[in-house]
Amino acid sequence: MDYSTSDILVSEIVGTALLLLLGAGVVANVILPKTKGFGGGWLLINFGWGLAVFAGVYASYKSGAHLNPAVTIGIWASGAETFSEGGLDVTAANGFLYVVAQMTGAAIGSALAFLAYKKHFDEDADAGTKLAVFSTGPALRSYGWNFVTEVIGTFVLVFVVLAFAKTPAELGPLAVALLVVGIGASLGGPTGYAINPARDLGPRIAHALLPIRGKGSSDWAYAWVPVVGPLVGGVLAGLLASVYLV
Amino acid sequence: MDYSTSDILVSEIVGTALLLLLGAGVVANVILPKTKGFGGGWLLINFGWGLAVFAGVYASYKSGAHLNPAVTIGIWASGAETFSEGGLDVTAANGFLYVVAQMTGAAIGSALAFLAYKKHFDEDADAGTKLAVFSTGPALRSYGWNFVTEVIGTFVLVFVVLAFAKTPAELGPLAVALLVVGIGASLGGPTGYAINPARDLGPRIAHALLPIRGKGSSDWAYAWVPVVGPLVGGVLAGLLASVYLV
Amino acid sequence: MDYSTSDILVSEIVGTALLLLLGAGVVANVILPKTKGFGGGWLLINFGWGLAVFAGVYASYKSGAHLNPAVTIGIWASGAETFSEGGLDVTAANGFLYVVAQMTGAAIGSALAFLAYKKHFDEDADAGTKLAVFSTGPALRSYGWNFVTEVIGTFVLVFVVLAFAKTPAELGPLAVALLVVGIGASLGGPTGYAINPARDLGPRIAHALLPIRGKGSSDWAYAWVPVVGPLVGGVLAGLLASVYLV
Amino acid sequence: MDYSTSDILVSEIVGTALLLLLGAGVVANVILPKTKGFGGGWLLINFGWGLAVFAGVYASYKSGAHLNPAVTIGIWASGAETFSEGGLDVTAANGFLYVVAQMTGAAIGSALAFLAYKKHFDEDADAGTKLAVFSTGPALRSYGWNFVTEVIGTFVLVFVVLAFAKTPAELGPLAVALLVVGIGASLGGPTGYAINPARDLGPRIAHALLPIRGKGSSDWAYAWVPVVGPLVGGVLAGLLASVYLV
Repeated sequence: MDYSTSDILVSEIVGTALLLLLGAGVVANVILPKTKGFGGGWLLINFGWGLAVFAGVYASYKSGAHLNPAVTIGIWASGAETFSEGGLDVTAANGFLYVVAQMTGAAIGSALAFLAYKKHFDEDADAGTKLAVFSTGPALRSYGWNFVTEVIGTFVLVFVVLAFAKTPAELGPLAVALLVVGIGASLGGPTGYAINPARDLGPRIAHALLPIRGKGSSDWAYAWVPVVGPLVGGVLAGLLASVYLV
Repeated sequence: MDYSTSDILVSEIVGTALLLLLGAGVVANVILPKTKGFGGGWLLINFGWGLAVFAGVYASYKSGAHLNPAVTIGIWASGAETFSEGGLDVTAANGFLYVVAQMTGAAIGSALAFLAYKKHFDEDADAGTKLAVFSTGPALRSYGWNFVTEVIGTFVLVFVVLAFAKTPAELGPLAVALLVVGIGASLGGPTGYAINPARDLGPRIAHALLPIRGKGSSDWAYAWVPVVGPLVGGVLAGLLASVYLV
Repeated sequence: MDYSTSDILVSEIVGTALLLLLGAGVVANVILPKTKGFGGGWLLINFGWGLAVFAGVYASYKSGAHLNPAVTIGIWASGAETFSEGGLDVTAANGFLYVVAQMTGAAIGSALAFLAYKKHFDEDADAGTKLAVFSTGPALRSYGWNFVTEVIGTFVLVFVVLAFAKTPAELGPLAVALLVVGIGASLGGPTGYAINPARDLGPRIAHALLPIRGKGSSDWAYAWVPVVGPLVGGVLAGLLASVYLV
Repeated sequence: MDYSTSDILVSEIVGTALLLLLGAGVVANVILPKTKGFGGGWLLINFGWGLAVFAGVYASYKSGAHLNPAVTIGIWASGAETFSEGGLDVTAANGFLYVVAQMTGAAIGSALAFLAYKKHFDEDADAGTKLAVFSTGPALRSYGWNFVTEVIGTFVLVFVVLAFAKTPAELGPLAVALLVVGIGASLGGPTGYAINPARDLGPRIAHALLPIRGKGSSDWAYAWVPVVGPLVGGVLAGLLASVYLV
């Protein structure tokens, strides 16, 4: 079916909002005080994010469900003609519109997660914990190596997503959901696997704007890493795909 | 195939009973004393509930497997003509019948879980723990915010379920099972994710009636939250679906 | 394709052997001293058993992959004409042959798990722990209630397996694998979910025969519970299926 | 589609590199100091490796995605005519090329995981922990029994993979991913489940070559076990398949 540009962009907003609502939600559940999932572990976080992708992809069927500027730029770099079946043509302007929609949706989704966990944000916790619900931060701060980790993780995401089309299966959105579970389990240890500029920057803006009790810095010094790293990883994946996935 | 109204309602009872047998069962396993799964963690609870949905949906194929008044009301709000393929027409009376069946099934299922864990209910545990096998309760009591959390969680459930039809995949009941795992992981932290009035109220009635050793209050003061919150969330999802999922 | 009776029975042996090799294996991994998975938790055990079913079902495609006398007797009770597509006719003699094959395979599989974990069986551990790798035991011993728990768990297994055919999906053996994960998570807490006479009795015989260092009693006093309970549960499921799953 | 020999071998390199990038990555996440997944448990490791297979198989669709010399030799032993649909003919020379590609990919992938976790490798940890990110080691050293464990685990892997074709399902690479999760959960306790000579030897070579801070021995005395054991297991599986999987 052909959808209008505004339908497609709303779809991308809705999907990314669901992604962040559930993604920020699982982090809140594991690290904020007095939740039922407190201390639930890394695999819980991995499944939470993976199934956040699962829900978001189903909800954004009109736009091809990129939900991630690194995917959008990877598709562009791969030389595809449209951003998805029935999606917009590959142009810089359309790519920009996708990214704006993704950022908007991510900010909205994280704000909804804030509402869902409002009483737990009102508890005492250090400011860094409250920020971590919204945006990623490194386990060991080293901008160069953190950047490398984000490039590698996003490369895997975008490259394998582009390879999905080559092996028939009827998993639908489950395939990318499981891929994200796997990347989180395996490559999330150093930086918390942003692997998506919108997933990180949109909520960071929301964090800066929202009236969060005991809020601290939004750590803007780190903010470029989970933006630039994933974009570089996505471009590399798209370029390799253009010569390899044939 | 066309089934009779009574076949359809029995199907809804059976499916919801399985949902609560397995759902209350996993909570019993994790929180009652001396079980093999004691302290097994939040992800275990999430998979237990998700796969409870999985089993219940397979068993209630005649009714379309709502198993949840929020789904029924969401379908009604979305403007669909039948409650499911081959199910009953969308009328207030038929919706009421579905809800009665769901409540009945949920009460029966939780009573069966009580029997399965009878020796563990006979052990000393505080009354709140024993109630928690049956019905949800908030981590931090705040009727307003608990309500918000239930609205958001149920909105995600019903909206994404309605979106499933738009993306072909051959997952069958696994799709909704995984969605419930994800909602539990991500949005279950504050209230224990009722996201279903029958899942909460049916077992609460069973708790009030069953001869449970050391039983305390059924916490009726909270009981409206996991009923009204999910209904509001389901209606909002259905209304949005009516304009968005086209 | 039509297979000979001996092909079918060998298939049932191979499948049940794989089931127990992986199933006893995950228990060994979690409870025997000095393994890499020691203390890995209940969900690990649940996934281990579920994926043991997954492997066993793929390997026993010639026999219809019952792997469980409760399934065989449930199919008989449901009034089906063959035990599976292309399998043997439903007669008492053929049912008996299936059960003998299942018991044989289960004993073999648990003996292979013993070999895989031989060095860990040689470590000091109490005799009950070593038995628990082979056969189930109750968390709280109460033959009557333990029986009830096994009836309920097996009822769910057989009833939902029989219902699978009513909802199209392309999950193959994954459906029953996930069902077993769910039953273990939800109903395994009191008795360790035998839900299969062969899974329990075959390995108990193997335990009695094998030269296990520091071996104690094979707990024959309990052995009837995980045999009779599952058979009753399977028959009840088959009978209900014969009137309900139409 | 017909691919050139070099395309096929590059495909095998890419897939095995992804396998090890994600597989070594999850081990690094769980055992290296100060990662976000530190102490995340055995099931996290199992899902990490299983989904590493998932990603690797999608990416190596041109070669049939063996990613494992034990699979290659098992296909040869089973008497198949090609190594995969559209893959190379079964000859010793082509098998050798596959194995070289697998070893190369595995070494590259583990080196990428080293880069992703570089800052955590720079932390103080004992040399054995750092080696364990690359290659397996036994929980209790006993070359004979460790060998037996690797034979059994690999037999299950190759035999069930060869059986997949007999049961229709639309799981695609998910089937083998879940099988690997199950083998790891169930049979990984004694040796860490190499079940793949390339997965172990390629990274061991990388470990010997890479400038890892505080690096110790590459434990060459053990290196034959996770090479010879899996090859024997693969051959046994192929031989049994040639008479059983008909």
